[in-house]
Amino acid sequence: VEEGDSEKARDLVSPLHPADIADLLELIPSERRADVAAALGDLVGAEVISELNDYVRDDLIGALAPEQLAEFAAELDTDDAVAIIEDMEEADQQAVLDAMEPEDRAAIESALAYPEESAGRLMQRDLVAVPEHMTVGQVIDYLRDNDDLTRDFWEIYIVDAAHRPVGYSQLSWILTCPRGVAMADLMKREQTLIPVDMDQEEVALRFQKYALISAAVVDRAGRLVGMITVDDVVHIISEEAGEDILRLSGAGEGDINQPVLLTVRTRLVWLVVNLGTAMIAASVVGLFERTIEHLALLAALMGIVSGMGGNAGTQTLAVMVRAIATNQVTGSNTWRMIGREFRIAATNGAALGTLIGIGSYLIYGQLGLSLVFATAILINNLVAGLAGVLIPVTLDRNNVDPAVASAVFVTMMTDSMGFLTFLGLATIFLT
Amino acid sequence: VEEGDSEKARDLVSPLHPADIADLLELIPSERRADVAAALGDLVGAEVISELNDYVRDDLIGALAPEQLAEFAAELDTDDAVAIIEDMEEADQQAVLDAMEPEDRAAIESALAYPEESAGRLMQRDLVAVPEHMTVGQVIDYLRDNDDLTRDFWEIYIVDAAHRPVGYSQLSWILTCPRGVAMADLMKREQTLIPVDMDQEEVALRFQKYALISAAVVDRAGRLVGMITVDDVVHIISEEAGEDILRLSGAGEGDINQPVLLTVRTRLVWLVVNLGTAMIAASVVGLFERTIEHLALLAALMGIVSGMGGNAGTQTLAVMVRAIATNQVTGSNTWRMIGREFRIAATNGAALGTLIGIGSYLIYGQLGLSLVFATAILINNLVAGLAGVLIPVTLDRNNVDPAVASAVFVTMMTDSMGFLTFLGLATIFLT
Repeated sequence: VEEGDSEKARDLVSPLHPADIADLLELIPSERRADVAAALGDLVGAEVISELNDYVRDDLIGALAPEQLAEFAAELDTDDAVAIIEDMEEADQQAVLDAMEPEDRAAIESALAYPEESAGRLMQRDLVAVPEHMTVGQVIDYLRDNDDLTRDFWEIYIVDAAHRPVGYSQLSWILTCPRGVAMADLMKREQTLIPVDMDQEEVALRFQKYALISAAVVDRAGRLVGMITVDDVVHIISEEAGEDILRLSGAGEGDINQPVLLTVRTRLVWLVVNLGTAMIAASVVGLFERTIEHLALLAALMGIVSGMGGNAGTQTLAVMVRAIATNQVTGSNTWRMIGREFRIAATNGAALGTLIGIGSYLIYGQLGLSLVFATAILINNLVAGLAGVLIPVTLDRNNVDPAVASAVFVTMMTDSMGFLTFLGLATIFLT
Repeated sequence: VEEGDSEKARDLVSPLHPADIADLLELIPSERRADVAAALGDLVGAEVISELNDYVRDDLIGALAPEQLAEFAAELDTDDAVAIIEDMEEADQQAVLDAMEPEDRAAIESALAYPEESAGRLMQRDLVAVPEHMTVGQVIDYLRDNDDLTRDFWEIYIVDAAHRPVGYSQLSWILTCPRGVAMADLMKREQTLIPVDMDQEEVALRFQKYALISAAVVDRAGRLVGMITVDDVVHIISEEAGEDILRLSGAGEGDINQPVLLTVRTRLVWLVVNLGTAMIAASVVGLFERTIEHLALLAALMGIVSGMGGNAGTQTLAVMVRAIATNQVTGSNTWRMIGREFRIAATNGAALGTLIGIGSYLIYGQLGLSLVFATAILINNLVAGLAGVLIPVTLDRNNVDPAVASAVFVTMMTDSMGFLTFLGLATIFLT
């Protein structure tokens, strides 16, 4: 559509929401993206840039002058501007900052001073804070008279003389109360304060748990320094929850806009690590080469033992990784979880073992083989259940992300133990 | 702590947020939960019940009288009350509804008339809607004078004479404007309307995409019937994103509070389905029993071929499942995705094949074996890459959830094709 006819493309795109324009740009093959963006001109504004996928944005802003980027950054809330600038190279970052107004620059520089993925990067500085003694009427007059206040906020914070938050009020409470009511009587004193260095994942969990719309961010001295609103947290909640599946499978970020070579590198590292565990499993099989020469059927069946264990282990692992990520696993219920998974593994192992034992007896008519097969299935299910709980819990206690590292160990256990029990029992009882 | 000393337990628990009390109840072993809840008495109120995990709630509300539940439901927003009542058995549901005030009952019954997991179940009926001609001052007076309005809202909707929404205004815009401004001049006309029968997953995606705080829900005639607020959507976003990992691994809901027997049943079904694919793979190996009798080493190495393919397939699958779930895959970029994954698979396959070929030559010193090994690894990587894209995309086009069904097919492909290429090539070239 956009070939040459930029007038028409502009007409089609102009009624769209910035998020939709960003989606559209992401769908265009990367080699034509810059041309399309140029044809759309000022329709690709600050908000569109801010909505773009990181990699697509990198593609596009390379072509922009620092002055243009500085202008975009000034239009956005601090947190959105920081999100764009934090990904840039040091030198480009400096060029953009130099082109900004001193006030905007100070806000962004102080945000960049906080660690990546912390509340300090996520918060915006524009917020409304009033002292406790003000009345509803005074607050409304203050809001009407101050043109330089932000126009987008959902709650206002009530602070003491040292600028420490003592409570908050939803705007709806202010709007439904007579002018004479004091903020001290209207506000809610129980509030969820976010320390400025809190990790964004933890921030997202608090928003979820307490159903927050916005929250005050405080520095170490307890002073109000910013606010985080739920719309900035929503994409973190979704990313963090979706990330586990990608990490567990070793797919890295799993971003479909990531350059191919970067993706190859991430995935290859994971495959090579798994090659190591596959070699360990292979060497277990190697121990039993004699047995297999005698009874090649074992080679066909051993994959069922290791595969079933692998599946059961992955099930337990997925449940545990989600439970840990949502803070559902604590010291007090770890033993209960282990007991629960052990019972599930024992029941499933017994059921599958029986099914496979009877099935294989009907097919091959060898009682010894079927008993060995069924026993190996049961044992490997128990191994899978225990490994599926103990490995992520242990990694988590040692501050290793269980989503990243668990799968390798669990697979190693289910593969190696599956081969060891099946071929080991077969060697003892069948040859 | 709670043994007998209910006075002390109440003192400890009373300053907590309802969400924290709910968490505490979830941590208590199920057999002691009812006693603790009884000891806490009215601290376990409507909000705590509403925050509880479904299974834990079922445990606790079994003991409550319908009148008590009706009272709880009346205290909550429609959507939270519906969430509690929709999970109950038909007869219990009716008993609770009978015990409610007619007005509350009507609201809940009409919500229950919408399909499960639809916007209609998620929305609340209490909202503020005003006609276009009102001024800011009139709206504020209206809000102050009507005591029966909800106290918790973030935006108000502007409707025409037929009660169709024509725009919305954030409360902050109303608070920062002089009394004389007409709502028609203040409101934003571009708004995201949610049809009452929209699936909750789609609702969550819209909230995410457009960074919504609340949205108007309309019936088929376009009339305003309710509103959904972001706090009700946040847990859906997190659940939907976290669900994929559980579905992909066949762990069902993955709820750690689910009764063990129900969990066993869900997981066992998955394991039996996978047993089928494992048997297909085993039968492929069975075709080559002769080859394996000759060269038992193949039995040890074949697991590396299938395993590497399985890992690569899972990586691609995880990326595709997330991309599909977040609406990033459309007709226009499917081919681009296939091309991308093919290039990644070819690069990784070549790298792994080379590594494994050279490695195995150094270990075993058999050039033929190493060439067969390397070729099989490369081919199986390509199979994995293509299956990892094509299977979820095809399932999605046929309205089957790719997270649930893809893994079985991908594993079947990588296992069977891995064995087939490796053992097949070995049979041709090595025996």
